[in-house]
Amino acid sequence: MSTIVDVSKLAGVSKATVSRVINGTGQVKQSTKDSVFAAMEELGYRPNRTAQALATNKTDTIALVLSNYDSARWGTLLHQVSIQVQQAGKTLTVIDGMNDPQHEYEVIRQSEGQCDAILLYSRTLTDDHIQELESKLSTPLVVLNRVSTKGNYHSVSIDQFQLIHTAMQHLISNGHKSIACITGPIDNPTGKARIEGYKHALHASKLPYNPSLVQSGDYHIRSGYETCQKLMGLSVKFTAIIAFNDNMALGAIKALAEQGISVPDQVSIIGVDNDPHGEFSTPELSTVELPIEEMAKHAVKLALQLRDEALPYEPKIFQGNLLNRNSVIPFHANKAWLSF
Amino acid sequence: MSTIVDVSKLAGVSKATVSRVINGTGQVKQSTKDSVFAAMEELGYRPNRTAQALATNKTDTIALVLSNYDSARWGTLLHQVSIQVQQAGKTLTVIDGMNDPQHEYEVIRQSEGQCDAILLYSRTLTDDHIQELESKLSTPLVVLNRVSTKGNYHSVSIDQFQLIHTAMQHLISNGHKSIACITGPIDNPTGKARIEGYKHALHASKLPYNPSLVQSGDYHIRSGYETCQKLMGLSVKFTAIIAFNDNMALGAIKALAEQGISVPDQVSIIGVDNDPHGEFSTPELSTVELPIEEMAKHAVKLALQLRDEALPYEPKIFQGNLLNRNSVIPFHANKAWLSF
Repeated sequence: MSTIVDVSKLAGVSKATVSRVINGTGQVKQSTKDSVFAAMEELGYRPNRTAQALATNKTDTIALVLSNYDSARWGTLLHQVSIQVQQAGKTLTVIDGMNDPQHEYEVIRQSEGQCDAILLYSRTLTDDHIQELESKLSTPLVVLNRVSTKGNYHSVSIDQFQLIHTAMQHLISNGHKSIACITGPIDNPTGKARIEGYKHALHASKLPYNPSLVQSGDYHIRSGYETCQKLMGLSVKFTAIIAFNDNMALGAIKALAEQGISVPDQVSIIGVDNDPHGEFSTPELSTVELPIEEMAKHAVKLALQLRDEALPYEPKIFQGNLLNRNSVIPFHANKAWLSF
Repeated sequence: MSTIVDVSKLAGVSKATVSRVINGTGQVKQSTKDSVFAAMEELGYRPNRTAQALATNKTDTIALVLSNYDSARWGTLLHQVSIQVQQAGKTLTVIDGMNDPQHEYEVIRQSEGQCDAILLYSRTLTDDHIQELESKLSTPLVVLNRVSTKGNYHSVSIDQFQLIHTAMQHLISNGHKSIACITGPIDNPTGKARIEGYKHALHASKLPYNPSLVQSGDYHIRSGYETCQKLMGLSVKFTAIIAFNDNMALGAIKALAEQGISVPDQVSIIGVDNDPHGEFSTPELSTVELPIEEMAKHAVKLALQLRDEALPYEPKIFQGNLLNRNSVIPFHANKAWLSF
C-alpha cells in the first residue's frame, strides 16, 4: 500500500503540502493541488480518515439519528438528507434510535466527536431531553420536526398544526361537520400540535369537539384499519375522516370497504404525507404534502454552517400543501348519511 | 471536560489500566473494571472513539451501503439490519450509493478502515466490480442479495429465481397460461435471475414464452401503473400478471381499474415482497414474502465473524414463501376472458 511519502515523492512536493491538500487547510496553488491529486490517483493512495479526523478535528461526516427506520416517511427523509449531504461532499451516517428515548439519548451522546454535526429526527425524546443534549454536546445539533419551546436549540421543522388545520379546513369547506380523526401517538410534540390543529379548525368553524371521534393509531397502515374498525363500532356518526398519515388513511379505506362503505360516496377521507401509495389507490387519496425535500436541504445547510461557526437559534418552519384528489367530496353529494 | 487522567486518578489505577478497560484489551480484574466504569460514569467521561479506533484498529461500526434509500424494501432491510447490529452492541453507518455504480464503488472504497465490515446491497454494481472490491479491500465485505459467480466473495442472498418461479407456479397451477410480467430493471443479477424464473416456469409447464408480455418497470408504484397501461395497449391477451414487487402490482391494479377491469375477476395478479400496502389493498394482494429478517441476521453475524477471522466463501441463500391472498383466482372462474 502506498503512503503519503510516496505521494509527496511522485508529486514532487513536501509531505506537509500533501497533508494540506488532503485536509483542505492552508494556501496551496491549484497546479500543486492538481499534481497531488494526480499522484494520489496514480498510486491508488487513500488518506487514513481516522488519522485525518484526529489531525483536523473534522470528520466530514454528518450523523442522522432517527427514532426508527420502519416507516415510509423515514425513507423519503433519508433519501433527501442523503442527497443533500452527498452534494456537499460529506458522508452521511444514519443511526437508529430503536424507538426508545433512553437508547436514542445514548446514541446521540456516543456520536459526539464522531461527526461534524448531528441531525435528530426524534419521535420519542422530550423537549427537555433535547435541551439537555444541546447544552451537553460539543458537536452541533440540528433538530428536525420540533420547535424548541424555550428557543434554545437549532430546529428545522414542519408546521404540524398547519398540516392538520389545512386538511380540516378542506373537509369543513366541503360541508363536513362530523369528522372522525385517526391520530398517531399524541404523547409527543408532533401529536400534540396535530391534535390542536384538529380542535382549532373545529372551533374556528363553531363545530363541536367530540372526543369519541378521536382515536389513536401508530402511523402504520394496520393501525388505520384497526382504528377505523373501532370508530365504526362506537356508533357515532361521521361523514369524513382525517388520518394523521396516508398509510392510516389507506388502512381506514380498507376497513370501510369491508363493511360495504364506499369512499368518497359515503365517507370522505384525507391523509397527510403524499405517499405514492395514496396517489395510486382507488380513489386517489387527497392529502397534505410534507415539504421533506425543503426541510432536508435547509437542515443540512445549517448543520454544515454550524460546523464552522456559532449561529443564533432561529427556528425554521415549513408549511404543507393541500393535494386535492378524489377521496373528499361535498357533504351534500354523499349518497348516504353514515350511521353504523 | 474530563480526561483519561481524571478517570485513572478517581479509580485509583494507572492510565494504561483505564485504556485496557475501555478497549477491552489485556487482563483486568472485574473489580478494577467496575471502579473504572464507576469513575467514568461519575465524571461523565466518554472515550474519544476516533483515538480509540486508531489505538485498537477496531471501530465497532458496521457500514451498510445501499444503491439508494428511496424504497420501501430498503426500509425493511435497514430496520432489520439496524436491529441486528445494535443487538451486537455495534453502531450502524448507512451510506447511500445514489443509484450510481461509480459513486457506489467510491463510497465503498472510502469506507475502508472506517468500519469493521461493509454490508453491500447493490442494484447497480456488476459482479466484476464486486470481485474487484473484494480483492482490493482490507475491510471485510459481505454482499447481500447477490451470489458470486466465481465463488470469490462472501454473500448472503435471496433466491431470486425461486421467488418468481414460486409465484409463477401459483398462477400456472390456477390454470393461467397467458401471464404478463412487469419486471424491474433486468440489466443486473437480480433482474436476470428473476426473468429466468419466469421463463423456466413457463417452460416447465410447456407454455410458450411471448416477449411482448414482458415489460420493464423500475420497482416504484408509478412504473407498475404505466407498464400495465403499456401492456393493455399492446393488444396481447393475458389472464394474469406477475409483478416483480408489490408496489408495481398495486400500480397495475390501479391501471386495470381505470379501464374497468376487475382484479381478480378478470385478471389475477401476484407480487413479491409482502409489503403491508398489499395486505390492506382491495383485493388483498397475493405475494411471495422475502425473508429479509433472516437475511439481515445471518449477514450481520457473518460480518462480525469476519472482523475477527478469515472464513471460506460459502454463499448463503434464503428462499421466499408464497402468501396466497385474494388477488389470484382459478382461470376458469374468470368472469371474462381479457381482450383489449
